[in-house]
Amino acid sequence: MSDIDGRTVAKDIRAEVAAAAAKLRAEGTVPLLAVVVPTDDEGTAWYVRSIKKAAEKEGIDCRIEQLDAPGKDEIVAKLQELSADDAVHGIICQTPLPKGVALAEVGWYISPYKDVDGANTESAGRLAAGLRTFAPATAEAVLELLKREDLVLEGANAVVVGRSNVVGKPAAMLLLNESATVTVCHSRTKDLAAVCRGADVLVAAVGRAGMIGADFVKPGATVIDVGTNPTEDGGLVGDVDYAAVSEVAGRLTPVPGGVGPVTTALLLRHTVVAAQLSKTHR
Amino acid sequence: MSDIDGRTVAKDIRAEVAAAAAKLRAEGTVPLLAVVVPTDDEGTAWYVRSIKKAAEKEGIDCRIEQLDAPGKDEIVAKLQELSADDAVHGIICQTPLPKGVALAEVGWYISPYKDVDGANTESAGRLAAGLRTFAPATAEAVLELLKREDLVLEGANAVVVGRSNVVGKPAAMLLLNESATVTVCHSRTKDLAAVCRGADVLVAAVGRAGMIGADFVKPGATVIDVGTNPTEDGGLVGDVDYAAVSEVAGRLTPVPGGVGPVTTALLLRHTVVAAQLSKTHR
Repeated sequence: MSDIDGRTVAKDIRAEVAAAAAKLRAEGTVPLLAVVVPTDDEGTAWYVRSIKKAAEKEGIDCRIEQLDAPGKDEIVAKLQELSADDAVHGIICQTPLPKGVALAEVGWYISPYKDVDGANTESAGRLAAGLRTFAPATAEAVLELLKREDLVLEGANAVVVGRSNVVGKPAAMLLLNESATVTVCHSRTKDLAAVCRGADVLVAAVGRAGMIGADFVKPGATVIDVGTNPTEDGGLVGDVDYAAVSEVAGRLTPVPGGVGPVTTALLLRHTVVAAQLSKTHR
Repeated sequence: MSDIDGRTVAKDIRAEVAAAAAKLRAEGTVPLLAVVVPTDDEGTAWYVRSIKKAAEKEGIDCRIEQLDAPGKDEIVAKLQELSADDAVHGIICQTPLPKGVALAEVGWYISPYKDVDGANTESAGRLAAGLRTFAPATAEAVLELLKREDLVLEGANAVVVGRSNVVGKPAAMLLLNESATVTVCHSRTKDLAAVCRGADVLVAAVGRAGMIGADFVKPGATVIDVGTNPTEDGGLVGDVDYAAVSEVAGRLTPVPGGVGPVTTALLLRHTVVAAQLSKTHR
């Protein structure tokens, strides 16, 4: 079994991002990512700080827009303001959102040209139609990792466990665009382990620590673990039981060090692409 | 084996449509469906005339907008004009489109409020997110037929053969919203027959006459045949080999008389819903 090393992939992408950002700056455009934070959740604050640090390291300015217990209207107003602001190139609306507010609803107010985490339903529809668009960064990270491995996605049996709008469904669409045969499983799936054992490529995005055991994995399969479940001692574990599955899988992403760093790198790449587009598309 | 009778389902839906249209007319709103026809293809002309006849029978006016060998710009201009016209409630852009023009591109110019055949990528994204929207009528017809049968979609293994934007992908999303475990297959799928044999619900939307044989079907499975392939003698056959599969399946839609009439009925239902929305949403 070999580890799929997300940190190396992220490093490659971030080197390209830094070069693109430097070029933009030389041309007078300072790439700017705005992150709307509608929660005072500590985990979110940590994550947002890590994005800001990564952005600034690669030459992208990052503005954190902290909202204090906002209603839907306040979030919408902020997203509209940022969408209309020519200095802003990328917009992320962080979750969790206040109770009763769905990302798909407020995401509509992020300009598709700045929608670097694919939160707008327009972006989701363009993704489903196979048109150019910004995909949710986590879903795209799954594909980015797979495409750098020596494997054939065309005709492969891909099984995605989890059907969220931000990971499961867009990852399924991206895999379908690569001509994999794609199955989407979830909490209502019968005999989940058996369905997963049919996978050449298994994507775990359920949000339950270690639930994908060795009996879910076909010998030699490629397993991408999207889970980031906090542990009691302040660490992170994935949805995959790493110790058990590493005995069976051919390739496996670790947590941390797999999907996570690539997701951050792709948010930055999307931001420089959005900044490049801003010079021609407005 | 029992036939799933699309004509009876369509009749039920159309009775509801007629009642809703009569109410709208009594309130001073004449529901109007506009069909943009960018081709002189004879099969398309026949289909469009059948929609117009059905609409008028149920109290919906239908305007056919025939375009003569249009470019993309002309199609876009017509869709924009109809989207801005308060008298128009539903808009369909018929295929086939001119070479090099994708429905997903021109569909963007259909107002989502009038997008009764789900051609706008915004509609596709809302569908994927599980939000209220108009789904492509053919994909919704698949679900409409399934929901009227005595079967449990939650946890069922559903296999969709075909990954088009207008049928395969939206049908997969609708089945996923019903909590089925959904697999999407296509021309690159390995051992298609074996994958299909795992299906409790099998949806055939490939466009190849009779390609789904008895060896693709689990005994007792429910099979929905979306195919409408013209025969040399002017008839229609589905993607399913009816004679062979009817020996194995539990339930099967005939062609004609299955998905087709329900699709037409749903286009009409969407149009009266759009007309109702026009009274409150503008």
